[in-house]
Amino acid sequence: MIIIMKHGASQDNVEAVVKAITAKGLQAHLSQGDQVTIIGAVGDKTRLMHDNLELIPGVDKILSVTETYKLANKKFHPQDSTIRVGDTPIGPGHLAVMAGPCAIEDEEMIMETAQAVKAAGASFLRGGAYKPRTSPYAFQGLEEEGLRYIRRAGDATGLKVVCEVTSLRALETAVRYVDMLQVGARNMQNFELLKEIGRSRIPVLLKRGLSATIDEWLNAAEYIIAEGSPDVVLCERGIRTFEKATRNTLDLSAVPVIRQKSHLPVIVDPSHATGVRDYIGPMAKASIAAGADGLMVEVHPCPSCALSDGPQSLTFEQFDALCGELRPYAALAGRAF
Amino acid sequence: MIIIMKHGASQDNVEAVVKAITAKGLQAHLSQGDQVTIIGAVGDKTRLMHDNLELIPGVDKILSVTETYKLANKKFHPQDSTIRVGDTPIGPGHLAVMAGPCAIEDEEMIMETAQAVKAAGASFLRGGAYKPRTSPYAFQGLEEEGLRYIRRAGDATGLKVVCEVTSLRALETAVRYVDMLQVGARNMQNFELLKEIGRSRIPVLLKRGLSATIDEWLNAAEYIIAEGSPDVVLCERGIRTFEKATRNTLDLSAVPVIRQKSHLPVIVDPSHATGVRDYIGPMAKASIAAGADGLMVEVHPCPSCALSDGPQSLTFEQFDALCGELRPYAALAGRAF
Amino acid sequence: MIIIMKHGASQDNVEAVVKAITAKGLQAHLSQGDQVTIIGAVGDKTRLMHDNLELIPGVDKILSVTETYKLANKKFHPQDSTIRVGDTPIGPGHLAVMAGPCAIEDEEMIMETAQAVKAAGASFLRGGAYKPRTSPYAFQGLEEEGLRYIRRAGDATGLKVVCEVTSLRALETAVRYVDMLQVGARNMQNFELLKEIGRSRIPVLLKRGLSATIDEWLNAAEYIIAEGSPDVVLCERGIRTFEKATRNTLDLSAVPVIRQKSHLPVIVDPSHATGVRDYIGPMAKASIAAGADGLMVEVHPCPSCALSDGPQSLTFEQFDALCGELRPYAALAGRAF
Amino acid sequence: MIIIMKHGASQDNVEAVVKAITAKGLQAHLSQGDQVTIIGAVGDKTRLMHDNLELIPGVDKILSVTETYKLANKKFHPQDSTIRVGDTPIGPGHLAVMAGPCAIEDEEMIMETAQAVKAAGASFLRGGAYKPRTSPYAFQGLEEEGLRYIRRAGDATGLKVVCEVTSLRALETAVRYVDMLQVGARNMQNFELLKEIGRSRIPVLLKRGLSATIDEWLNAAEYIIAEGSPDVVLCERGIRTFEKATRNTLDLSAVPVIRQKSHLPVIVDPSHATGVRDYIGPMAKASIAAGADGLMVEVHPCPSCALSDGPQSLTFEQFDALCGELRPYAALAGRAF
Repeated sequence: MIIIMKHGASQDNVEAVVKAITAKGLQAHLSQGDQVTIIGAVGDKTRLMHDNLELIPGVDKILSVTETYKLANKKFHPQDSTIRVGDTPIGPGHLAVMAGPCAIEDEEMIMETAQAVKAAGASFLRGGAYKPRTSPYAFQGLEEEGLRYIRRAGDATGLKVVCEVTSLRALETAVRYVDMLQVGARNMQNFELLKEIGRSRIPVLLKRGLSATIDEWLNAAEYIIAEGSPDVVLCERGIRTFEKATRNTLDLSAVPVIRQKSHLPVIVDPSHATGVRDYIGPMAKASIAAGADGLMVEVHPCPSCALSDGPQSLTFEQFDALCGELRPYAALAGRAF
Repeated sequence: MIIIMKHGASQDNVEAVVKAITAKGLQAHLSQGDQVTIIGAVGDKTRLMHDNLELIPGVDKILSVTETYKLANKKFHPQDSTIRVGDTPIGPGHLAVMAGPCAIEDEEMIMETAQAVKAAGASFLRGGAYKPRTSPYAFQGLEEEGLRYIRRAGDATGLKVVCEVTSLRALETAVRYVDMLQVGARNMQNFELLKEIGRSRIPVLLKRGLSATIDEWLNAAEYIIAEGSPDVVLCERGIRTFEKATRNTLDLSAVPVIRQKSHLPVIVDPSHATGVRDYIGPMAKASIAAGADGLMVEVHPCPSCALSDGPQSLTFEQFDALCGELRPYAALAGRAF
Repeated sequence: MIIIMKHGASQDNVEAVVKAITAKGLQAHLSQGDQVTIIGAVGDKTRLMHDNLELIPGVDKILSVTETYKLANKKFHPQDSTIRVGDTPIGPGHLAVMAGPCAIEDEEMIMETAQAVKAAGASFLRGGAYKPRTSPYAFQGLEEEGLRYIRRAGDATGLKVVCEVTSLRALETAVRYVDMLQVGARNMQNFELLKEIGRSRIPVLLKRGLSATIDEWLNAAEYIIAEGSPDVVLCERGIRTFEKATRNTLDLSAVPVIRQKSHLPVIVDPSHATGVRDYIGPMAKASIAAGADGLMVEVHPCPSCALSDGPQSLTFEQFDALCGELRPYAALAGRAF
Repeated sequence: MIIIMKHGASQDNVEAVVKAITAKGLQAHLSQGDQVTIIGAVGDKTRLMHDNLELIPGVDKILSVTETYKLANKKFHPQDSTIRVGDTPIGPGHLAVMAGPCAIEDEEMIMETAQAVKAAGASFLRGGAYKPRTSPYAFQGLEEEGLRYIRRAGDATGLKVVCEVTSLRALETAVRYVDMLQVGARNMQNFELLKEIGRSRIPVLLKRGLSATIDEWLNAAEYIIAEGSPDVVLCERGIRTFEKATRNTLDLSAVPVIRQKSHLPVIVDPSHATGVRDYIGPMAKASIAAGADGLMVEVHPCPSCALSDGPQSLTFEQFDALCGELRPYAALAGRAF
């Protein structure tokens, strides 16, 4: 931790900071420049957590040097993790492709989709049973009924099932049906939900919040891991910016950034990120080239009849063609697909 | 609803759209230009909700002309609402000042703060019992114990008590203690929580999400009102932008925008928005001048000992001085304070 | 300057950094923690400018502690400046109101506008002769002819004339006509233009760039002042964010931030910031309450016939009414208007 | 053009709009719904440019349906363009790699860099002679001397030379030395410069502005093409967002968006976008996979001695290794490299 004193801070001010630091058993190292004095606090900085050094007169600002997340941090876990969902690995050497409709609409459509995406090469079946929607008047999902349908589709095809949970109640139900829980962008900092998910010990797909920094995202993962569940996969799905040509702005650089800061796998969702069908293929290829461990893609038997997100869904034929185009990129990246 | 056809869409494409619209009992109005054909759909557009016109070949994009929120919409409720929390009004002619610590730390500090902010002129006591924190290792709040303390402080002073709830569980407990519930920025689109709060019928302070558009914010209010609770007060608390000189960027224009689009009261939280004590006074005055119905300000008996957000908290003396400075602005704006 | 070493940097790495610092005659202060070593460089850091310490193996990042702007910095010039444009002051105790059309369209309209805004209380006449427009096919301004018209209108009314210059050529011409030059948002980092303006010694109104940080804005001011012209007035005009309810997002907190970091006057342009006529009044009042030294407002004899920005222009009657409403706010803020 | 009337607009209001449209020889098509009336204006909308329909009482908003750029628009030029810089093509089937230092520092370093990047496979040599810098006290470039050096290096190696121009004066000089002009992010809307560049008829690399929308970017290209120079190549180099883990946020989706909206080639600069050497390789591969027509990469003989942007520069060895890694991606994308 570094304390930067204001231009013109008095010697008394500096001493007050030094005293506050040493009182907690840490060491204080002084750098006194002509314009600015800097104090480095060395030792266990959690002891200073309640001291608000920022409010000691003469203090300009405090800079934190170390990240607040530990379990998700590559510094303390230098080897990239492979997360296993049943016998299906997500991590180095593999390309995990998750596909399915935005929302589960009925049993037939999810079963049909499962068969199609399985045939094309996906290993995970996605589908929403609890849909967070901007307007209260939009379709909100089939809830437990939907979970039953997708479980059957997963069992029939051998695909692993991944579903979003949007509340503690949804979680209680979902744990009986799914192989992997999903936390959506809007709930990335729903900390009560994260903690309870961590206690469930079920693998989690943690989507990045609409305007979450990578640091906040890794702290959200830390909430889950700290409760006992180490199996967290991150999913970049676009951030909110001024640009409106795409639904969100896919921050693909997040892939190498995560790779450098964390050992957790990271996948990309080009469907939600771009919101436009024609952009999904190029961004899916780019994701693999950037080092992503997998992809999440929306597929629907009849996009023009979809209850939500039709414009960004691929047909079965389009998804099959996409998988064909992705294979040489996966091979180039050294990933089995 | 307006359907814009692609440059080069065929007459067949146009007819397919017209047919889809008229099949649902709406009227289709055509404007055929040299470059572009536009089709207006007139009638009850909810009937078209599942039709995904966007996917009919030749369709370029769909523009929605009417807002999806109705109950929060000024068009259908032209008079500005006054929300009553017990006998305390929030709305035209009043300036509701809510003050208190970021977190309730112990009984003495919240009681002491209640007395000080009451004396200075506040009518609401704020204080967090459930604290959403970026890191799982930071102080998370006293939970029910904290609610007991703040209830006692409210009763002792006559201040109305407003507390944030971060989960359905916290809500179940909080309804027994508070006069007004608060939904924080991170939970603005925690739709399950919004619905349950709506069912509680307790007045709600709904903070704007970090990167929520005003349209999404009003839709979040709609979730609450649609469940039966009309008493929603909006709170602007800054949005996330590239600028780092302040903690967030206070979007003060949101006040006149909300005033034009909705009948709900809107207050401003300059403490969280700026994150810097010196900026709170100027932005509090500006909020009143812009037409805000109230303010939420962080006050702490000893900011330098605060467990959270100390740097942006005012001391009792500073808050008292601020209230003195605000009074002529409230008078000028025609608001009792 | 603070150098933070990577977790696991070797003692050799640390010594290499220390050596690089001391080789240039600065002192290096070490803080060696368990996880991280920090090195403070004390002395004239410009000597290190070409050393790229960031690239010495083991270095994680470099933090700059002092601002790069000096002449615009309040630390070295603690008293707020008053800029004089002829005999008209901009600074503490005064509210400078600048009004006029977006673009000068003909001689009559600018003369008529000058008389109206003068009568209402403005002391500056604004009007664009060189219009930067997104599309090359939109009206680009009357250029020198426009400058002649606005000069005559200024002379006839005693209003000071402020006009935007968009290139070195425009500058050469404009210096013969205007009392104050304006640098628009798109040219805030057109450094060649800034330098040449600085050499002209004419007072400047420097608008903030669409996505410029406050730090970059003050550095742009530094470019001008460093060339010899100390008379720079800053103008906040909204930044670009995800919110589309307003044309830009007025960052009104920039007013107290600038007040703390710089001695230069700062005014606000609520017309360009919001882009909506109904929001100009509330935000103009808020600007005064926040501490602004002035306002820039678009006024047009017939907004519905304006060649640009009509929707955000006030009529003469509206501007006169606005000035009436602003007066008590100016009085409250201790500013003559 | 679509005119949306306010809820409650009178029949008179509607007629006034219709009259304004038909008065200019366009047709007006009405869609009158229960809540909203919509009027489509069909015909040459430039005739309405000065009418400000938005200000007719009862008008809520105007939506523009067609883009303002024509020459850069794929609608009117469906085939992707290949731009030729001398005999070197940029466009379908080719991967144009531009490499070199941020700034030209002396003759030896640019010559040495030219030889190294040529050997590795680049076909363009980049290097700054005019450097736009945030602070006036930072190194600003060697100007004409630098241009002389890079020209010699280009001639010696057969590489095409691309240099940024930051003002009309720099342009006058640069046209005598370079094969391709570069417009930097800060000057993307320096319209005077764009027009003059268009008159030069020299091929241009047009970087996207820090917070420019794709629509504004294509309009900037239109400024150049409209003056007579059709040879414009776009360069995505990151946009400004809240995320600080990278210098900017590389908006890689811009590549497929541009591909859909324009026929102009588009390349990517991963060096400026990420600002971190370790992220350049992954994002360069991703750019090719996303469909980019080329790359711009910073290379320096000794990044730790660079006068600017050292931390994001590759050494000769790193650049050579990168080119080796990129080759199979170029092959997969069907591009000669």
